Amino acid sequence: MSAASRGRTLPATRSPPAMNAPLPVPATLSTSSDRLWSSLMTLAKIGATPRGGVRRLALTELDGEGRALVIGWLREAGCSVATDAIGNVYAIRPGTDPAARPVAMGSHVDTQPNGGRFDGNYGVLAGLEIVRTLNDAGIATTRPIAVAIWTNEEGTRFQPVMMGSGVFAGAFTAEHCRAQKDADGITVGEALASIGADGTDPMPAFDAYFEAHIEQGPVLEREGKVIGIVESALGQRWFDVVVEGQDAHAGPTPLEMRRDALLAASRLVVAVREVAQAHPHYARGTVGRLIVSPNSRNVIPGRVELSIDLRNADAATLDAMADAVREAASRIAAEDNVSISIEQTVHFPPCAFDPALVGAIESTAQAFGYPARRLASGAGHDAVYVARTCPAAMVFVPCEKGISHNEIENADPAHLHAGTNVMLHAVLARANR
Amino acid sequence: MSAASRGRTLPATRSPPAMNAPLPVPATLSTSSDRLWSSLMTLAKIGATPRGGVRRLALTELDGEGRALVIGWLREAGCSVATDAIGNVYAIRPGTDPAARPVAMGSHVDTQPNGGRFDGNYGVLAGLEIVRTLNDAGIATTRPIAVAIWTNEEGTRFQPVMMGSGVFAGAFTAEHCRAQKDADGITVGEALASIGADGTDPMPAFDAYFEAHIEQGPVLEREGKVIGIVESALGQRWFDVVVEGQDAHAGPTPLEMRRDALLAASRLVVAVREVAQAHPHYARGTVGRLIVSPNSRNVIPGRVELSIDLRNADAATLDAMADAVREAASRIAAEDNVSISIEQTVHFPPCAFDPALVGAIESTAQAFGYPARRLASGAGHDAVYVARTCPAAMVFVPCEKGISHNEIENADPAHLHAGTNVMLHAVLARANR
Repeated sequence: MSAASRGRTLPATRSPPAMNAPLPVPATLSTSSDRLWSSLMTLAKIGATPRGGVRRLALTELDGEGRALVIGWLREAGCSVATDAIGNVYAIRPGTDPAARPVAMGSHVDTQPNGGRFDGNYGVLAGLEIVRTLNDAGIATTRPIAVAIWTNEEGTRFQPVMMGSGVFAGAFTAEHCRAQKDADGITVGEALASIGADGTDPMPAFDAYFEAHIEQGPVLEREGKVIGIVESALGQRWFDVVVEGQDAHAGPTPLEMRRDALLAASRLVVAVREVAQAHPHYARGTVGRLIVSPNSRNVIPGRVELSIDLRNADAATLDAMADAVREAASRIAAEDNVSISIEQTVHFPPCAFDPALVGAIESTAQAFGYPARRLASGAGHDAVYVARTCPAAMVFVPCEKGISHNEIENADPAHLHAGTNVMLHAVLARANR
Repeated sequence: MSAASRGRTLPATRSPPAMNAPLPVPATLSTSSDRLWSSLMTLAKIGATPRGGVRRLALTELDGEGRALVIGWLREAGCSVATDAIGNVYAIRPGTDPAARPVAMGSHVDTQPNGGRFDGNYGVLAGLEIVRTLNDAGIATTRPIAVAIWTNEEGTRFQPVMMGSGVFAGAFTAEHCRAQKDADGITVGEALASIGADGTDPMPAFDAYFEAHIEQGPVLEREGKVIGIVESALGQRWFDVVVEGQDAHAGPTPLEMRRDALLAASRLVVAVREVAQAHPHYARGTVGRLIVSPNSRNVIPGRVELSIDLRNADAATLDAMADAVREAASRIAAEDNVSISIEQTVHFPPCAFDPALVGAIESTAQAFGYPARRLASGAGHDAVYVARTCPAAMVFVPCEKGISHNEIENADPAHLHAGTNVMLHAVLARANR
C-alpha cells in the first residue's frame, strides 16, 4: 500500500442525488478512513509476520491480546461487552428502545497461519468505526447497535470452522465444540479459559446482521467496482475421489491394455470444469488436490486420489452438478477400464441473504455513487451461520489481486472506507426502522 | 509358481515339420527345463527377499556373490572367463575356428531394489544352459559361443543405466562410468574393486548377439503366446513439463477468471494419450508423474509439474509425436491462460534389431510350433546398446500378468524353457554359418 493510494479519495464521496434513496441521516455522515486504517494497522501488529501478514491463531495468547485490544476500544466507545460459552464477544451500544433487538455487525479476529491483516479483522473494526462515528455525530438509534467477534472462524487450530457463529446458530453445541482438541491435545474449553474468553453470558438474538469483509476473490478489482453487494453464499459439496487402475511399465504396455488411473482422473478434472461451465447460479467446480501413485515417470499410474469441490448459489442446481459429475465419472470409468469411487465429505447448503438488507446495501452504495455490483460469496463466512437466526447480508470490498489467506493480502484504505460507509447507512436505516 | 505348472509340458516340443525350416542340428535337441529352473532358483537365493523377490544391487557384495556363482558355473562348463574395465564378464566356449568372432548371448544379474528372480538373470542363465546343452550333446560350433554378464543394467545404485553394455558400445567411456558415485559417495571404480570385478581384459567384438528376457509387459500372456520375436526396441523421448497458472481460492474465483494449472495439465495428459493413439509403430505416450501445488482441496492449483514419456519404434514418427504434444501444449496454454514449459530430458533413438537374426528366431519358434508373435521391446535392454556393434536380436517369454521390477515377478518354467530352446537353435545356426 503506497502512501499515494492511501491518501486517494474516491469520487464516490460526493453527496447522493436526493431522489435516489433518501437516507435517514445526513448523507454526508461518513466514517473516518484514517481512524479505521489506524485501528487495522494497530491490531495487525499483534502476531505480525516478517512478510507483512498476521499469524494469530484462534484462542492462542496472541488471539487473547487481539481480542483484549478490540474489547478495550469498544468499551472506550461506550459499549457494554459480554462473552458467551464459546468465547463469542458482543458489544452493545444502547438504543433508545432498550427492549428492541440489536442490529449487529461483526466478523472474526483470528487468522490463518500465514494470514493477512484484513480477513475478518476488517468486519469487526468497521463495526467499531461505525460506533465511533455515531458517537462523534451524537446520533442515537432506536435499536441498540451490536458488534460481535466470533470465535475461531478460520478453523485451522480447532475444527469445525466458523465455530462461534455455528454455535450461535445452533449448528453445533458449545459443549461439543469446547471438547475439540488442537494438535497438542489442548481443548477449546482449556484454550478459552487460558485467555480469559471463557464466558457465561447468553448471546442476544439480533434484529439483523451485517458483515463487511474483503472479497477474497478477483471480481471487484477486475471490474473496477468498490462495493460488492453480496446476495448469497454459495452452497458447497465436497467429494473425495479414488481412481483405481493398474500400475504397469510405460514401455512394454500397449495403450489398449492400460488401466491408467491418471488418464481417467485427468478426464474427470476436465469434466468437473465442463459441468461447472454448463450450470448457472455462480457455478464453480474445482479439483485442488490430486495425488498420483506410484508417481514414477515410466510407470503407468495405478491409483489417483483427488478432491472435487462443487459450489452453486442454488441448491437444486448444486445437486444437478453433483449428479452430472457422477455420471461423467461412471462413463470415464467404463471407457478407461478403471474404478472410480466418489464419497461426499462436506455439504453446506446455499445461503440466500435477506433481500431487504441486500437491497438496502445496494441503494446505499448507489446513493454514495460507489461503483458496485451484486455477487455471491464463494467462501464461507460467519454471516452464513448468523443468517439462520435473523435477516443478514454482507458488504464486500476489493482485495489486491483477489489474494487472501496469505501474508501479502492487501486492501485499499479508500475501499475499506467505502464499505464502512455503506454498512453505516444500511445499519442506521435498519436501526431506526 | 505351482508344482503343477512347473511340470507342465508345452505342446510345442513336438518335432517341427520337415519342410518348414531345416535346423542345422537335430530339431529334437532341447535344453533342460529343470536344470535352467534350478540355476535360476539357486541364483535367486542370493539377495532373496521375504516376499519372494531379489534385492541384489549392482556391484554390492551380493552382486559379487551372484557373479561368482555364475562365473563358477561357466568355468565348470569349460568356458574361459574374463572381465573388462567396467566389470563386464564374458565367458567363451571355443569354436572350431578360434579366429572367428563369437556368437554371444547375455544379459545382467544385478536387480532392482525390490526386483524379481528373472529380469536379467534369465538371459545370462539361458546362455549358460545352452553351453551346457551343447556340451552334453557333444556339439562343436564353428564360431566360439560367448556368454556375457553386463554390469549395472538397472541403474538404481549408479547412473547411467545399462552402464556395462553402454561402455561396450562406446555410448560412454569406462573412465567416466568408473567415476560415478552412489548415494554414499562410493565410486563405481571402488565398488568394482571391492567385489573383485575390476578387470583389465578387453571385451572381444561379437559376430552376433542374442538376449533372452522376460517380456516385462502383458502382451504375450494376454494373447496366449510363448515366444516374443523382438523386432525393435522403442525409441524414447522424455520430457519435464511445468504448467504455471495462478493459485486462487476455489470459492470466490469465477471460472472465467481462473488460471488453473491442474485443468491445463489434465488436458495435456489427455492430449498425450490422443497423440499416441493417432500414431503407428508401437506408439506409447505416458504421464507417470504429476505433482500439484499447493495441492489443497479448496485452492485452484497454480503450478503443476509432470513428466511425459513418448515411445515409438520409428524415429521420424517419434519426432512427429513430440511435435504434436508441443502443439497441443501451446493450444492448451493459450486456451487456459497458463504457461507450459517443456524440456526434453532423455532421448534414446529407436533400435531396429537385425532382420536376419529376427527372422532366425521367428523360423525357429515356428519350427518348434511355439505360439509366437513379433513385438517391440518397450523398455531398454543391454541388447539395444550391443546392437550398435553387431547384429543383435532378443527373445521374449511371458511374465505373469506382465509384472516386473517387483518382488512378485513370476514366469512359467515351460516358457523359460521354450525361449532357451529358440535361442539355442538360432545361436547354433549363426555359429555354424
